Amino acid sequence: MKKDIVKPTLLIDPSIAKKNLTNLSNKADLSNVIFRPHFKTHQSQYIGQWFKDIGVSKITVSSVEMASYFANDGWNDITLAFPTNIRQIDRINEIAKNITLNILVESEYTIQFLSDHLEANVNAYIKIDVGTRRTGIPIGDSRTLTSLISKIKEGNHLSFKGFVMHAGHTYSARSKEDIQDLHQTYISKVSELAKEFGTDLIYSVGDTPSCSIAQDFGLANEIRPGNFIFYDVMQEIIGSCSLGDIAVCLACPIVAKNEDRSELLVHGGGVHLSKDRMNHPSLKNVFYGYLAYIDHDGWSVLPKDNYVSKLSQEHGTVQVTRQVYDSYSIGDLIGVLPIHSCMTANLMKQYQTLDGTSIPMMSIH
Amino acid sequence: MKKDIVKPTLLIDPSIAKKNLTNLSNKADLSNVIFRPHFKTHQSQYIGQWFKDIGVSKITVSSVEMASYFANDGWNDITLAFPTNIRQIDRINEIAKNITLNILVESEYTIQFLSDHLEANVNAYIKIDVGTRRTGIPIGDSRTLTSLISKIKEGNHLSFKGFVMHAGHTYSARSKEDIQDLHQTYISKVSELAKEFGTDLIYSVGDTPSCSIAQDFGLANEIRPGNFIFYDVMQEIIGSCSLGDIAVCLACPIVAKNEDRSELLVHGGGVHLSKDRMNHPSLKNVFYGYLAYIDHDGWSVLPKDNYVSKLSQEHGTVQVTRQVYDSYSIGDLIGVLPIHSCMTANLMKQYQTLDGTSIPMMSIH
Repeated sequence: MKKDIVKPTLLIDPSIAKKNLTNLSNKADLSNVIFRPHFKTHQSQYIGQWFKDIGVSKITVSSVEMASYFANDGWNDITLAFPTNIRQIDRINEIAKNITLNILVESEYTIQFLSDHLEANVNAYIKIDVGTRRTGIPIGDSRTLTSLISKIKEGNHLSFKGFVMHAGHTYSARSKEDIQDLHQTYISKVSELAKEFGTDLIYSVGDTPSCSIAQDFGLANEIRPGNFIFYDVMQEIIGSCSLGDIAVCLACPIVAKNEDRSELLVHGGGVHLSKDRMNHPSLKNVFYGYLAYIDHDGWSVLPKDNYVSKLSQEHGTVQVTRQVYDSYSIGDLIGVLPIHSCMTANLMKQYQTLDGTSIPMMSIH
Repeated sequence: MKKDIVKPTLLIDPSIAKKNLTNLSNKADLSNVIFRPHFKTHQSQYIGQWFKDIGVSKITVSSVEMASYFANDGWNDITLAFPTNIRQIDRINEIAKNITLNILVESEYTIQFLSDHLEANVNAYIKIDVGTRRTGIPIGDSRTLTSLISKIKEGNHLSFKGFVMHAGHTYSARSKEDIQDLHQTYISKVSELAKEFGTDLIYSVGDTPSCSIAQDFGLANEIRPGNFIFYDVMQEIIGSCSLGDIAVCLACPIVAKNEDRSELLVHGGGVHLSKDRMNHPSLKNVFYGYLAYIDHDGWSVLPKDNYVSKLSQEHGTVQVTRQVYDSYSIGDLIGVLPIHSCMTANLMKQYQTLDGTSIPMMSIH
C-alpha cells in the first residue's frame, strides 16, 4: 500500500469503522431505540453497504442532494435532518414520490409553503432546540409546538410524526462525565416532552458524544449519530472515544524538514484536512490533528506532543519531538488523524483501504 | 438568475475579477516585474482564459495535479510553488517533458533525488524564508544557499534560475501602512540577496497584500499573487482591498429565522465556505463572513454588523440587525462574502456568473 501513495490520501481502516458501527448498533438495540445513523460523515454508498449488512434500514442525511444520492442506492426511509429548504421543493417532490422522506419544519411559513406545493406525502418532524441555540423551537415552548402540530395536521401531504433534536452543545464536553451530565439534562427534558405529547410519536436525538457514552435515552426512541463511524481527534478530546477508535487517517508526503524548529513540512493542508481546529489538551495552543506512523497494515498513533501546528491551503506544518524528527526523511509518509473527520472526508472525496482499494463518495453537493 | 438558485451557489462577478486582474497586471508592468499569477485561487481553465486575454503567459500552481490541469490547457511555463514532493517524480517527469516546469527545492536530499530520477529538464528555484517561518532557507543564510546552488548546478536535468519567496507574514497586517512596513522590511532583504547572488537571476515574491499595496519591489523581479483575482473578507481586514473589490459571493437560501436572537439560519456551512475565520474588526468575536443583498445584477454589501456568526457542516448562523432581519423571509437568498475565497472556491468546485452561466473548476486533487 505505502509505496503507491504519492499525494495526500485518506486512508480508512474498515475493521475499526465496522467495530464502531457494531458497537453503536448494539447499543441502540439494548437501549431499545431506533438506529437511524447520519450518513453526512461518510457520504458513500459503498460504506452505506456496511450498514445494510447489519440490518440498518433507516438513515439520516443533511442535504437534498445527499438524500437523492442514497435513495438512488436503494435506501427508502430517509430523514433530511436540516430545516427544509423550500427553494428545493421540486427535488423534494421528486424524492418523496419514490421513498419515505422525513423532513424537518419549525415555522408556519414553511409548513404553509409545503402544504401548497407538495405533490407526494412526506413525514414532518418539528425541529426542537434542546439548548444548542442553532435552530428549532425551544423545548419548553409548548404553545408554539401545539400550534405547529395543528398546522401540520391541516396541511396537504404532511403527516406529523414527532420531534427531532440535536444536542450539539455536548461538543463542549471534555470528559465522559461532562458528556453524561449534559446528556442527562437534555434527555430529561426530552422525556418531559414525550410525556406531554405522547409516546406514540418519535423523539429523535443524535449527537455522537451522547450516543457513544450514554446508556439511558429516557423516552427518546431514536438516535441519529453520524461521526461515530470514523470518530476523530475532536471526539477523543470531548471524551467520546479513544484515539484507537479513529478509523481514518490522512497519509501525507513529507516535502521538507526544519531541524532548528523540529518541524516537518507535509503536503496536506486546509484543502485536505479542513481548517477545523482545537486547543491542544496539554500544550494549549491551537492544533489541527495528531500524527501517526504508517506501516503496511495500518497506522500507529504517535505521542500527543507530535501534532499539526499550522495549516495553509496545501502546506501542513508538523511539530515533532526530536526522536520523531530523526526517524523521518523527506519523501516518507506520515499520517494525520483529523480534528474533524466529516470535514476531511468531504474534502478528500474518496477513501483508500489498507489494501489499496479506492472507495468513492458522492461528489455533487 | 436569482430564481434559479435553489442551493448554496458561488456567484462570481467577472467584471470585478477582470478589473482586479487588470489592476495587478498594470502594476506589474509599471513596476517592471514579471507577472506570474498563482492559479490555486480560481483553479479554473475558463478563468485562466481571462489571463491569456491580457497577455499572461507564465503562471504559478500549488500541486502537481494543478500543473497537469493547466498544462493540458496550453499553459507552457508553470511554477509549482510548493517544495517538490519527490513521491510524485513520475508525474513531474511527464509534465516536464511537455512544458517549462519550474520547481522549488530547499534541501540537498531533494536535489540529489531529482538529479537521480529526472528524465527531462526542469528549472530549479531555491525556496527562501523571508520571515514567515513556514518553509525555506532563511534569507541571511548565504552559506547554505551557496552550497545548494552548487548542488543544483552539478545535478542532471536541473538548471538553477533563482529564488522564490512568500511573505505570508503580511497576513498579520491590519492596515495598508502595516502591509507597506512589512513589505519594505522583507523587500530590502530580497534586494540584498539580489546584490549578493546577481540580478540576472529571478527573485520571485508573491503575497497578495504586498502586491496589492506596494509600488516598489526593490530588486525583486517577479510577482506571484493569487488571491487578488477574487479578494475576500480577510484581505479587506488586512488592508489589501475594499469590500467592493470582492468578486465572489456565496448565495445561501434562508431556511429558518429566530426573532429573539435576530438570527437567520442559512443553508451554507463549513462544506461550502470552509472554516476559515477572523476576529470581527469592531465586534471582536470570531466570524465567518460578511453579508450581501443579492439582486438581479449582482450583490450589494450589507453593513458590517450583519455577519456569519457560526458555521457547522451545512448550517450557517447569520447575525443581523433588526432592519435586515425584517427584510428577509424564509426561502429568500442572502449572500455571504467569504473570509477566504481560495478555500471557498476549492469547496464549491464551480462558479455561476450573474447571467446564470456555470464556470467549471478542476475537480481532482
